[in-house]
Amino acid sequence: MNCTKCKTRAVIRLPRHNAAFCKNCFNGFVHDQVARAIKSEKMFEKDDRILIAVSGGKDSLALWDILLKLGYRADALYVNLGIGGYSEQSHAKVTKFGEVVSASYGVTLHLHMLEQEAGTGIRELAQFAHRPTCSACGTIKRYQFNRVAIDKHYDVMATGHNLDDEAARLLGNILHWQDEYLDKQGPSLPASVEGFAKKVKPLYRLSERELAAYAVLNRIDYIVEECPMAKGSKMLQYKEVLNRLETESPGTKQTFYWGFLEKQSKKQPSATTMSEKDQAILQPCSSCSQPTTAEVCSYCKMMARAKGGFSGEQAARL
Amino acid sequence: MNCTKCKTRAVIRLPRHNAAFCKNCFNGFVHDQVARAIKSEKMFEKDDRILIAVSGGKDSLALWDILLKLGYRADALYVNLGIGGYSEQSHAKVTKFGEVVSASYGVTLHLHMLEQEAGTGIRELAQFAHRPTCSACGTIKRYQFNRVAIDKHYDVMATGHNLDDEAARLLGNILHWQDEYLDKQGPSLPASVEGFAKKVKPLYRLSERELAAYAVLNRIDYIVEECPMAKGSKMLQYKEVLNRLETESPGTKQTFYWGFLEKQSKKQPSATTMSEKDQAILQPCSSCSQPTTAEVCSYCKMMARAKGGFSGEQAARL
Repeated sequence: MNCTKCKTRAVIRLPRHNAAFCKNCFNGFVHDQVARAIKSEKMFEKDDRILIAVSGGKDSLALWDILLKLGYRADALYVNLGIGGYSEQSHAKVTKFGEVVSASYGVTLHLHMLEQEAGTGIRELAQFAHRPTCSACGTIKRYQFNRVAIDKHYDVMATGHNLDDEAARLLGNILHWQDEYLDKQGPSLPASVEGFAKKVKPLYRLSERELAAYAVLNRIDYIVEECPMAKGSKMLQYKEVLNRLETESPGTKQTFYWGFLEKQSKKQPSATTMSEKDQAILQPCSSCSQPTTAEVCSYCKMMARAKGGFSGEQAARL
Repeated sequence: MNCTKCKTRAVIRLPRHNAAFCKNCFNGFVHDQVARAIKSEKMFEKDDRILIAVSGGKDSLALWDILLKLGYRADALYVNLGIGGYSEQSHAKVTKFGEVVSASYGVTLHLHMLEQEAGTGIRELAQFAHRPTCSACGTIKRYQFNRVAIDKHYDVMATGHNLDDEAARLLGNILHWQDEYLDKQGPSLPASVEGFAKKVKPLYRLSERELAAYAVLNRIDYIVEECPMAKGSKMLQYKEVLNRLETESPGTKQTFYWGFLEKQSKKQPSATTMSEKDQAILQPCSSCSQPTTAEVCSYCKMMARAKGGFSGEQAARL
């Protein structure tokens, strides 16, 4: 099997593009897909300051690597959720990678330790707050990510969501016809209101498998295990069935997600309406000032509810 | 496990309805779902003459049984496609069932024998016409079904498509964003133009498993095997992945397909536009007079192309 581009020996075959690449041409392909995503979705410009949410997984570390190699100014934030050995390992991978890129590019890795802030890890916190763990985790990560972006004046927040993530999420939203979520499924969400940073997903044109290959080929040391809390999750089920269909018909995920984006782009008016709608209903949280649709934001509510489950000393820290 | 309704011993559990039924209450449930489908989608009235497309499978024979028991006037058409032992078996099942209901209700079973008309079965015919077998089969069945409906003055044609069929088709259309097909995915399609009969799917509220149980409990003898031509088809793949999701979350298919119908019903204007659009582009086929968007309809085109592959004697019959 030879490289479609330079005819030397290929290291990866991409059935959905009917192509095969050597390491160099594959890196070129990956960088090109990200550059196209950034440009076509107007994600950010060369002088924008970007904050990447990193987890220690292949996608977010590859994203950091790619953006720096493409010449962008990108720092990162890691939220340690206190999930025992899993968090310890992912934290170590992030720190190690952060040291390397700090030395080469002078960028910063911000850390947020949930256990230091809340006195306990996500499992116990979610239990005290009577929330499913994955939902509590999402609230915390979104909150901290946005807080750091606003406090440190980043222009845009970037996440490592890939084509598989977005296609799976789209499938879930469509199976339940969640119109409101469908409207917000684009890879570039504007800063809808003061206090909410712009959010982008520069990896939406690359599959999970392509990003794993990129990480391996470029010696990015990432945590391979899925989060132990996510076992049996709906998202993983949707990914599995889409992989099943992709194997039979390469390109299924791409046709599905990109086709959706094209369809959405044709009904532009509702996108602006969405932003206007958000602006009309958002207000500062009475406790922390982040934008929220309620009197108190869901993060502060959750933390307050969790407080009830803590002992005196722990509760005092919240 | 007791019947949710009458508390006697249940014979079937329906996780998506969070219910279990004895034979009698299950039959009542099935009849009720069909009656609701007919009423809510304005499919037909008590004095309409209905033509059912029967294949020998559980769905179409159950549909015939149910409509007769609900007091409707329903005849049936069976198209024998000449697929060796499979067609022989399904033909036998249909004839046997047809004799029983003819004796009880005085209804008619129409037969169309492809081999008698074309001198060969669907496999050879598709090959000569350079068409995939399933696509050629669809063209033939739609054509003959419509021809008999119009010639014999039926008010409406009914097919045995169930919830699984419709959800799988919807998934396929959505994965590829086939907008035009999405518009025509409702369970009740009006007679868009002179020469095209109205088409309805009264089983769209019942799953494959429920219809199999109905057939077994009511001693309807049907052909259990899938058509040998359909092996590995996309539709079967879509059904498999939806079954996978249904097992994890009962009600997935229903939420998906019914949710889609509800969404479609809200944008009523496009439904009329569709019918108007059809009327504007349809004209009588110059060969057979059935409505078509081209000069010659796809059935006549296929038959003409297939003719080229036949020997003199066979060709003369076409």
